Amino acid sequence: MQRQAFELLVLGSSSAAPTTHRNPSAQLLNIAERFFLIDCGESTQIQLRKFKAKFQKIDHIFISHLHGDHFFGLPGLLSSMHLLGRKQAITIYAPQELKGIMDLLNTVSETRMNYPINWHFTKDDKKNLLFEDDKVKVFSFPMKHRIFCTGFLFEEKPLPRKIDKAALEKYKVSVADIQRLRNGEDVVNEEGKKIKNKLLTIDPAESRSYAYCSDTIYDEDLVKHIKGVDLLYHESTFLNDKAERAKETFHSTAEQAAKIAAAAKVKQLMLGHYSARYGDTDAFIAEAEPFFKNILLASEGKKIKI
Amino acid sequence: MQRQAFELLVLGSSSAAPTTHRNPSAQLLNIAERFFLIDCGESTQIQLRKFKAKFQKIDHIFISHLHGDHFFGLPGLLSSMHLLGRKQAITIYAPQELKGIMDLLNTVSETRMNYPINWHFTKDDKKNLLFEDDKVKVFSFPMKHRIFCTGFLFEEKPLPRKIDKAALEKYKVSVADIQRLRNGEDVVNEEGKKIKNKLLTIDPAESRSYAYCSDTIYDEDLVKHIKGVDLLYHESTFLNDKAERAKETFHSTAEQAAKIAAAAKVKQLMLGHYSARYGDTDAFIAEAEPFFKNILLASEGKKIKI
Repeated sequence: MQRQAFELLVLGSSSAAPTTHRNPSAQLLNIAERFFLIDCGESTQIQLRKFKAKFQKIDHIFISHLHGDHFFGLPGLLSSMHLLGRKQAITIYAPQELKGIMDLLNTVSETRMNYPINWHFTKDDKKNLLFEDDKVKVFSFPMKHRIFCTGFLFEEKPLPRKIDKAALEKYKVSVADIQRLRNGEDVVNEEGKKIKNKLLTIDPAESRSYAYCSDTIYDEDLVKHIKGVDLLYHESTFLNDKAERAKETFHSTAEQAAKIAAAAKVKQLMLGHYSARYGDTDAFIAEAEPFFKNILLASEGKKIKI
Repeated sequence: MQRQAFELLVLGSSSAAPTTHRNPSAQLLNIAERFFLIDCGESTQIQLRKFKAKFQKIDHIFISHLHGDHFFGLPGLLSSMHLLGRKQAITIYAPQELKGIMDLLNTVSETRMNYPINWHFTKDDKKNLLFEDDKVKVFSFPMKHRIFCTGFLFEEKPLPRKIDKAALEKYKVSVADIQRLRNGEDVVNEEGKKIKNKLLTIDPAESRSYAYCSDTIYDEDLVKHIKGVDLLYHESTFLNDKAERAKETFHSTAEQAAKIAAAAKVKQLMLGHYSARYGDTDAFIAEAEPFFKNILLASEGKKIKI
């Protein structure tokens, strides 16, 4: 059986001012066919089309903060969803003021969407559960930026334990107990004897996780929220040549992102949100690698299977 | 001497829902190095970059109406102008509510632009002068759409008359009188005799004009505002197969656009604002040509010298 999807598609890797080849922030995450859009900079709907992502499948949109490069694509995307016939609800997890903006845009354009929008306003007090179903949990956590901003943590729930069919026969366990075994419970066999779960099942693959941190100043308080994730996206707007500028504008450098990744013992780090001043992104790897080894560079259209 | 520029660059040709190859409405008009941006759908700043237009040269932005496909690119463009160091003022001619939207976006993002924005709120009562300098006049005029909407008329002012140097000598007219002659005035020669302007000057090239009509239902009241323009852009969201839908949504068909062009005796017609349902745009020409001969199709990156 194929493992359920856990795939990230990068739609934009630039910071505030887009360039000819870089779009502002947006990522699409597919966990077990739940499609989560993370931030929605200008042109996100065009990027989704370009990379052949079916945007009507997106039922959850997460907006980290209300700087334009993280949400100016949202009104257009929601409008296109409406025009192209969407009926099913969408849930938007975002700072509260975003609803006021969307309401005003709909008022001036005399538009009434054909589908409901459920609003879930984020808070920056602590780690908060935003979404949970049978396969996935999503949390927000506070970040330190110039304005209210949260990161997001996406976790696959523990997968069911795998059944050892030979062991079922050996221990005379009924197939009727399979669901209980998958859940990790012990069972009683056909002879009335209690059989330990671990004799009958095999460990499933480990649950995977993804953390999204954009935008933030260098902040060690992040570490506790993103510990051990399979992939960490951490903004690296600047290189060390602009460390002062990073601090002033509440952004990070590539070195700082790598230090956070190392402290959190994550498995892989993806850098992005590059300032338009940097044409070449190889320097981001060069600067970060002394501090953390397994680094990817975000770029438009990049797909990462976690 | 080369004639002053009068050039249009099409940045977007789609109607409300963009497609893979079509962006929402935006055009850049250069008259004598005044750069006028007309509508500003999502991704306009990216289109400007793609087609190598220097967007800091834009000092005047005209927004026809507040459906998203005509202005969702404005916040991002204004923000990038700010981030890339703009200091000089920009003037926005638009429905009044747009200022409220921009103010709200700046409030939630705690942004203060480094350059002033002058607002000129459009009215839809009659033809109104919006801008005038020594070379150009720009007017708005009312259009009939679902919400408040205006078209725009861009007129080159009459060019100075050309001096016939041989005639100056022949009639003994001083070079000190050249400016008066250019303005079309008669002058008195060195012998105290009045000399008619037309003996000393040659007709300049005719002044050119461009009219922008998007979005509008078929409306013969437009004709008086756009009479005889060199180029008319008239929306053609639909073909005749959707004539009913055009009427319901206050849009036009290609045939209707051609009929308006013919009635206004314009020199050339450009169609655009195509519904996403039409993959192939040749059918727009085929439908319009029986009613008007000289037709262009808007497409991304198309440049038209008027």
